[in-house]
Amino acid sequence: YAQSSVTIFGIIDTNVRWTDNNGTRLTEMSNSGLATSRLGFRGVEDLGGGLKAGFWLESAVNSDDGTSNATRFWHRRATVSLLGDFGEIRLGRDLVPTFNGWLDFETFGTVGVGSLLNLYTTVGAPVDTLVRADNMVSYFLPSNLGGFYGQLSVAAGEGTVGKKYMGARGGYKTQTFNVGGFYGETESTGDDKFKTGGIAANYDFGLFTLQGIVSENKFRSAKERHYTFSGFAPFGQGTIRASYTKVQGKGTLDGNDADQFAVGYVHNLSKRTALYGTYALIKNDGNADYRVGGRASALGDDSQGLEVGIRHTF
Amino acid sequence: YAQSSVTIFGIIDTNVRWTDNNGTRLTEMSNSGLATSRLGFRGVEDLGGGLKAGFWLESAVNSDDGTSNATRFWHRRATVSLLGDFGEIRLGRDLVPTFNGWLDFETFGTVGVGSLLNLYTTVGAPVDTLVRADNMVSYFLPSNLGGFYGQLSVAAGEGTVGKKYMGARGGYKTQTFNVGGFYGETESTGDDKFKTGGIAANYDFGLFTLQGIVSENKFRSAKERHYTFSGFAPFGQGTIRASYTKVQGKGTLDGNDADQFAVGYVHNLSKRTALYGTYALIKNDGNADYRVGGRASALGDDSQGLEVGIRHTF
Amino acid sequence: YAQSSVTIFGIIDTNVRWTDNNGTRLTEMSNSGLATSRLGFRGVEDLGGGLKAGFWLESAVNSDDGTSNATRFWHRRATVSLLGDFGEIRLGRDLVPTFNGWLDFETFGTVGVGSLLNLYTTVGAPVDTLVRADNMVSYFLPSNLGGFYGQLSVAAGEGTVGKKYMGARGGYKTQTFNVGGFYGETESTGDDKFKTGGIAANYDFGLFTLQGIVSENKFRSAKERHYTFSGFAPFGQGTIRASYTKVQGKGTLDGNDADQFAVGYVHNLSKRTALYGTYALIKNDGNADYRVGGRASALGDDSQGLEVGIRHTF
Repeated sequence: YAQSSVTIFGIIDTNVRWTDNNGTRLTEMSNSGLATSRLGFRGVEDLGGGLKAGFWLESAVNSDDGTSNATRFWHRRATVSLLGDFGEIRLGRDLVPTFNGWLDFETFGTVGVGSLLNLYTTVGAPVDTLVRADNMVSYFLPSNLGGFYGQLSVAAGEGTVGKKYMGARGGYKTQTFNVGGFYGETESTGDDKFKTGGIAANYDFGLFTLQGIVSENKFRSAKERHYTFSGFAPFGQGTIRASYTKVQGKGTLDGNDADQFAVGYVHNLSKRTALYGTYALIKNDGNADYRVGGRASALGDDSQGLEVGIRHTF
Repeated sequence: YAQSSVTIFGIIDTNVRWTDNNGTRLTEMSNSGLATSRLGFRGVEDLGGGLKAGFWLESAVNSDDGTSNATRFWHRRATVSLLGDFGEIRLGRDLVPTFNGWLDFETFGTVGVGSLLNLYTTVGAPVDTLVRADNMVSYFLPSNLGGFYGQLSVAAGEGTVGKKYMGARGGYKTQTFNVGGFYGETESTGDDKFKTGGIAANYDFGLFTLQGIVSENKFRSAKERHYTFSGFAPFGQGTIRASYTKVQGKGTLDGNDADQFAVGYVHNLSKRTALYGTYALIKNDGNADYRVGGRASALGDDSQGLEVGIRHTF
Repeated sequence: YAQSSVTIFGIIDTNVRWTDNNGTRLTEMSNSGLATSRLGFRGVEDLGGGLKAGFWLESAVNSDDGTSNATRFWHRRATVSLLGDFGEIRLGRDLVPTFNGWLDFETFGTVGVGSLLNLYTTVGAPVDTLVRADNMVSYFLPSNLGGFYGQLSVAAGEGTVGKKYMGARGGYKTQTFNVGGFYGETESTGDDKFKTGGIAANYDFGLFTLQGIVSENKFRSAKERHYTFSGFAPFGQGTIRASYTKVQGKGTLDGNDADQFAVGYVHNLSKRTALYGTYALIKNDGNADYRVGGRASALGDDSQGLEVGIRHTF
C-alpha cells in the first residue's frame, strides 16, 4: 500500500451560458465548457521486465450544482491495464476507439456550446456506445512504432441491447501532422447494427493548426454524414479557436441538414487555469433539431449560445 | 498535475441518539452531531501578481450507514474561485450568504439535536435555497478591510421554481466581537418570493462568549421569527455550550410558537478528535411541530433528544 | 488538517467470465473475482497515552462498468474508531462478526465464481445483515491477548425490519492454526429472528493450508447448513486454491441441497498485482437454485462458471 502510487487529478470548469433556441432563451450556470469537470484517481506500478500495471478511476463532476453522473459514479473511466513492449491491454469502462478517432481532431474538445457532439446522434439506434462503453477489452499498439498508432476494442453486450460493440482506430502521427481513420459497429434492436466510421487529419502550420474530419453514422436506412473543418492559433497568452461543421441527413433523414459555426478564445492565466469564451450557432434545415444546449424549441430552427467560464486543472 | 496541489480533508462524526417526541421514542445511530461528516478535496494555485485560483469539492457522508446525499454527491460544495486583492469570485454550489449570516453566530453549528435548523422552515415556500444554492455566483470582500466583511450572491433559477436567489450579508468583526446582518430572496411559486433576513452579534467576554440572532422568514402571509440567544465557555479540556431559541409564527402561522433549549459538552481528546454530548428540548405551542429529530408524532407536542458521539477531523 | 493523515487505498479487479446455468450461457466482463474492487480513505491519529482515533471510508467500485453501489456510496465501510489498550470501539457501517467469522476461513475470499456466498442465503428472512450492518457499535478485543481474539457487535434497527442485529465471534490464533466460532441474530418480520452461527478452523501444514467451516442459517422452520472444506498451496509464483462445500436444506427447505466445487490459480506478477483463473461448479438437488453467477435458469440444475482476470492493489 505505497501511498505514492495514487495520483489525484481533476478539472473544475464552470461557466455562465446564454442560449437562444429560436427565441426560447435560458440563462444558466453550466459546466465543462472548455474541458469536462472531473475528479480522478490513477496509478502505475512497475512490475519489472518492461511490464507495468495501472489503474484509472475518473468521475464526472457537474461543478455548477454538485451532482455527479446519475448512472455511473465512475462515468468517465474505470479501467485496469497491463502495459509492456507489446502495447497495452485495458479492461473496463472507457472511451471507444470510434470516439477517440475524432476527439483528437476536434478543436472544441467535444464539450461546450461549440462541441461537435451537438451534431452527433446514433441515428435512432438505441445504443450506449457513442462515446464510451462498459465491459470493454481494448488493445493499444505500443508508442514506439515510428508514429503509427492504433486501438482495437471489443465490449461485451451481456444480453443488453445497444451494448455489444467492436471498433478500431489507427493512424500515423508526426510532430506536424496526424492522419487517422476509425470504424465501429454496435449491435442494436433486432440484430441491426449501428455503424460509425470516418477519417480525420490535422496539420500544424506553425502560426495555426487546421483540422478536418469526415464521418458517417448509420442505422437501418437512417444516415448522417459530418464534415467538420476547424482550426486554432496561439494569440497572446491564449488560443483562438474556430470550427465549421456540416451535418447531412440521408435515407430516412434526408433533408435534415444543419450547419454549426463556433468561435472562441481561451486565455491562459497559467498552465492549469484558463478563462474562456465561446460562441456557437447552429442553422437547422428540414426537421433537423440540433441545439447548442438550452431548452427545446420548434424543429428546424436556429440555435445559438454563448458561454464564458473558467477552467481550473489540478 | 502537481500532486501537492490537492488537499484531502474530512470529518467523521457518529453518535448514538435517543429521541422522545411526546412518547414516540427512537434509539438510533446517527451522524453529524457536532460537525457534519464529510469528505472533501481542495486546492489553491498561485497565479502570480496576487491572483489565485482555487477549487473545492465537498461531499456529505452519512457515517452511520455509509450513504451519501441522494441527489448531489458534492452536496456540501462544488466551486471554483478566482481570488485577488479585489476579493473572491466563486462559482458553483455553495452555502448562501443568508445561511452564512447566522451560521457564524450559532453555538450548536446548525447540527445535532440542538441545531437552530430544527426551528427553521421555508414557511411553506417550495425553495431549495435555505442553506445552499446551485448555480451560484458569489462575490466576497477581501479580508484586509480592517474588520469589514461581506458576501453578495446570485443563483440562476434555470426555469425551476425555488432556485432563483439573490442575497447578501455583511458585518464587522474584531478579536472580541462580531456584528452582522443578512437578507435574501428566492423566487417561489407564482412569482411570490421567500424572504429571509436578520441581524446577529457575539461578544467574547474571556470566560465565555455570548451570541444572539434575530431573524425572520416570510412567504406570502406566513411568517416566522426567531430569537436565539446562546453561549459557550471553555471548561477543562473542552467546551460547555447552551442555547435558547424562541420561534414565533405570524400571519397564517399565528400561534405556532416553540421554545428550544439545548445544552452540551464537548470534550477534546486532541485538536482533531472530540467526544460530545448534547441534550435538547423543544416545547411546541399551537400547531407547531418542530422536532429535535426522530419520528413524527402528534402536533403541538414536546420533543426531546440526547446524543453522545465522537467527532474525528482529518 | 495534516495531509499525511489520510491514506488512499483500493483494488481494481476486473475479469472475463463465462457462465453456463444448465445451458443458459453468458459471456461477460465482470469484476471482483479475486478481491472486491474498491476505493478507500483511512487514517489513524495518535491521541497520546496509548489512545488512538481512526476513520475508514471504503466504497465499492464495479470496475467493469464504472458504477458504484446504488444504495450506499460507502457501501463497504464507514466507521470511526477509538483504539487503546482496552481494544477498539468502532461505530458505523461495517462487516458483521458473523460474516468475519467465516471470511477468515474462506479460501476464495467470498468473491468470484467460487465464492462461499453463492450458497449463503437468509433462508427467506428479509434481513440486511448477512454481510454488513448499518448503525453498528462494535467492540474488538485488543491484539495482545496471546492469540485470543473477539468481536461483539450491536446494530440499531431504527424501526426498520431486518436491521436490528446482535452478534459475536471469538477464537484463538497462532502462526500455524486458527480456530473460532460465531453466532448472531437479526430481528426480522413478525419479531421472528434470523439466526446464524458456526465454527471454523484452519491449519498451515507448510506445503499447504487446510480450512473448514460448519455453519447454519435459520429462520422460522427454514434452515440451511453449510459444510465447507478448502485449501490452498503455494505453487511457483502463485497459489493453487480448491474448495468443496455442501449445503443442506432442512425444515421447509428439506431436500434443497447443493454441492459446490471450485479450483483456481493465482499468479502474482508482484505483491500488488496478480492474474487469476477460477472454475466453479454447483450441482443443485431438489428445488435448490444456487448459481455461480450469470443468468437464472430452471430450478435444480447445474451451474458452472470460469473467470480469468487481473487484480491490481494500490
